[in-house]
Amino acid sequence: MFEVRLVQGSVLKKVVEAIRELVTDANFDCSSTGLSLQAMDSSHVALVALLLRSDGFEHFRCDRNVSMGMNLANVSKILRTAGNDDIITLKADDDGDVLTFMFESPNQDRISDIEMKLMDIKSEHLGIPDAEYEAVVKMPSQEFLRICKDLSNIGDTVVISVTKEGVKFSTRGDIGNANIVCRQNTTVDKPEDSTTIQMKEPVSLMFALRYMNSFTKATSLSSSVTISMSSDLPIVVEYKIADMGYLRFYLAPKIEDDEDQA
Amino acid sequence: MFEVRLVQGSVLKKVVEAIRELVTDANFDCSSTGLSLQAMDSSHVALVALLLRSDGFEHFRCDRNVSMGMNLANVSKILRTAGNDDIITLKADDDGDVLTFMFESPNQDRISDIEMKLMDIKSEHLGIPDAEYEAVVKMPSQEFLRICKDLSNIGDTVVISVTKEGVKFSTRGDIGNANIVCRQNTTVDKPEDSTTIQMKEPVSLMFALRYMNSFTKATSLSSSVTISMSSDLPIVVEYKIADMGYLRFYLAPKIEDDEDQA
Amino acid sequence: MFEVRLVQGSVLKKVVEAIRELVTDANFDCSSTGLSLQAMDSSHVALVALLLRSDGFEHFRCDRNVSMGMNLANVSKILRTAGNDDIITLKADDDGDVLTFMFESPNQDRISDIEMKLMDIKSEHLGIPDAEYEAVVKMPSQEFLRICKDLSNIGDTVVISVTKEGVKFSTRGDIGNANIVCRQNTTVDKPEDSTTIQMKEPVSLMFALRYMNSFTKATSLSSSVTISMSSDLPIVVEYKIADMGYLRFYLAPKIEDDEDQA
Repeated sequence: MFEVRLVQGSVLKKVVEAIRELVTDANFDCSSTGLSLQAMDSSHVALVALLLRSDGFEHFRCDRNVSMGMNLANVSKILRTAGNDDIITLKADDDGDVLTFMFESPNQDRISDIEMKLMDIKSEHLGIPDAEYEAVVKMPSQEFLRICKDLSNIGDTVVISVTKEGVKFSTRGDIGNANIVCRQNTTVDKPEDSTTIQMKEPVSLMFALRYMNSFTKATSLSSSVTISMSSDLPIVVEYKIADMGYLRFYLAPKIEDDEDQA
Repeated sequence: MFEVRLVQGSVLKKVVEAIRELVTDANFDCSSTGLSLQAMDSSHVALVALLLRSDGFEHFRCDRNVSMGMNLANVSKILRTAGNDDIITLKADDDGDVLTFMFESPNQDRISDIEMKLMDIKSEHLGIPDAEYEAVVKMPSQEFLRICKDLSNIGDTVVISVTKEGVKFSTRGDIGNANIVCRQNTTVDKPEDSTTIQMKEPVSLMFALRYMNSFTKATSLSSSVTISMSSDLPIVVEYKIADMGYLRFYLAPKIEDDEDQA
Repeated sequence: MFEVRLVQGSVLKKVVEAIRELVTDANFDCSSTGLSLQAMDSSHVALVALLLRSDGFEHFRCDRNVSMGMNLANVSKILRTAGNDDIITLKADDDGDVLTFMFESPNQDRISDIEMKLMDIKSEHLGIPDAEYEAVVKMPSQEFLRICKDLSNIGDTVVISVTKEGVKFSTRGDIGNANIVCRQNTTVDKPEDSTTIQMKEPVSLMFALRYMNSFTKATSLSSSVTISMSSDLPIVVEYKIADMGYLRFYLAPKIEDDEDQA
């Protein structure tokens, strides 16, 4: 039997909205430690990894490990019928091929239950090794969203360069060239407005803006985003989910003159 | 001579916006008792009935009964040029084929007059017998709007079932099945937030969600909606218009396995 | 060398958004007195004239007169990456064919620089003689915007008639005829809400609403708009730019029964 209850149901809504553009179908893996998901985007370039730890739920029961395959467009349609303040409960029998969503309005006046058929999705779980990154930038997630969106007006790719002074986002396009520099800044009123840079050595890598813009769909999950880079590793763009876990996006850098991935 | 003056002009704007999706052309019937309209939707499945009583107008003069045929898309275009706070006056000669709209801004700085040609529309007035309904549900109009919209994400039809405990809205679709239950609830701060159920016997009827969604265009007219149902009668979805009358929608239930009307 | 710094960068954003629908490519003419632009719309019916005086800039250096040709769609894309509170600096070498935009966020945390290639645009500068107009109407720019938009629901042209009592905007269409009258009104709380009329003799002229609606894209530049008319001259629709200059639109009147320009 699987039954979990999430008082802050909006977290689930935001997670699904954040990844449904990248991922069509995916398995939600449930175990006693929590709910997790790992999926490649449809063009097999970016990887999404989600963790919602069991202790972040009001109630979490998962008698045995189960992998629930879902079409994310359908899950999104169902979750859109939940209010932002609703409590969300997910239920499934051990042998069942049906997941039940239950939405309770805060004052319990309105209760919805929606049954969704589960799918059989083949997926291989990739081991993502823990790595030490050469540069880690933490910045306001809204600022990162805006930079990716702004640069998309000019070009298709972004070069992210980290030095001690700051992080530079650059693009080139038919109109011209653009550079945006964000300086390290810790003297702000609210800690989530700060920009901090931890750096062992300068890094400069190029990525497709299309993917970066997809990742920023997760902006509402967290006021900060953490960007980790090493010259020989995919970039990690991480949005923390308060008291529960994280949503991480991995993307391999583009090699200069490699226009195929754009 | 016909001349009526409505201080709260926004009521007329809202009425026309509420029905113009369902009804293309319609006769506004004017008599000394007020302004009324009755029209079938273009596919002759739903019926709209409007009453604006004369005593709700600041000034109401209607020397003899007159039926004014209008294209509602044109009326909507004209009324959109009126501000929400404007006072609206409607004028027509007895033998005239022209209706004049006059809009006055609250401080009288801006006065518009728009002449619209009237149309000849043949329509038969249906007698709608007063009926006693087996179940009458009064609920917040916003809540009803949201339920109809939410269920449309899942299916095409809604089964509305009333019991003493509450009213259940159910749908089925390719994704799965959904039920939303609203409980009777009278202990709320504002009376318009309450959900009340008057029931002689349980009723359960199926309707096309497409029409229900059209009816909810009237949501801005009233904070409450009243839904009256009997097994052998069309459902009535009524929005009261404060101090003036009502806007009612009638829709025949669908018979199970009757997919033609969807 | 050309280098100008504008603390209120949003002015530049608004100017470009206001004219980019009318004008595709244009020369920005820079001299020690300021930045100016004069351009016909693509169908050569309307004329746009912009002046931003040098003393409205925090810093203004222009060693020799220079004409910088730009595609306004590209300039718009670049300026959209500037925040509304950003300080904007424009820089170019004397012999350069590149203009550099620099955007600084108010707290200096984020600095963007964007290089844009300049274009060679042939244009003849029209001398616009100073004229005395028979009627000059000053009214809230929002009100003028709304009237032009409202009348577009009914017809394609507007007749603007000025008398001592007020200014009348009239249109005719298939639906009917519409007149909107704004009275002179100086007893308002805020001076920008006033409508004033200076008139030597009554004027009544017809214009294409399509152009009027384009002109009102400048509404955010100023809370007032000034409309100057004489029977034998193009209308001037002027938006003042506080402490810096103006954005003016010129449009020749339509002759009755001349449907070609509509």
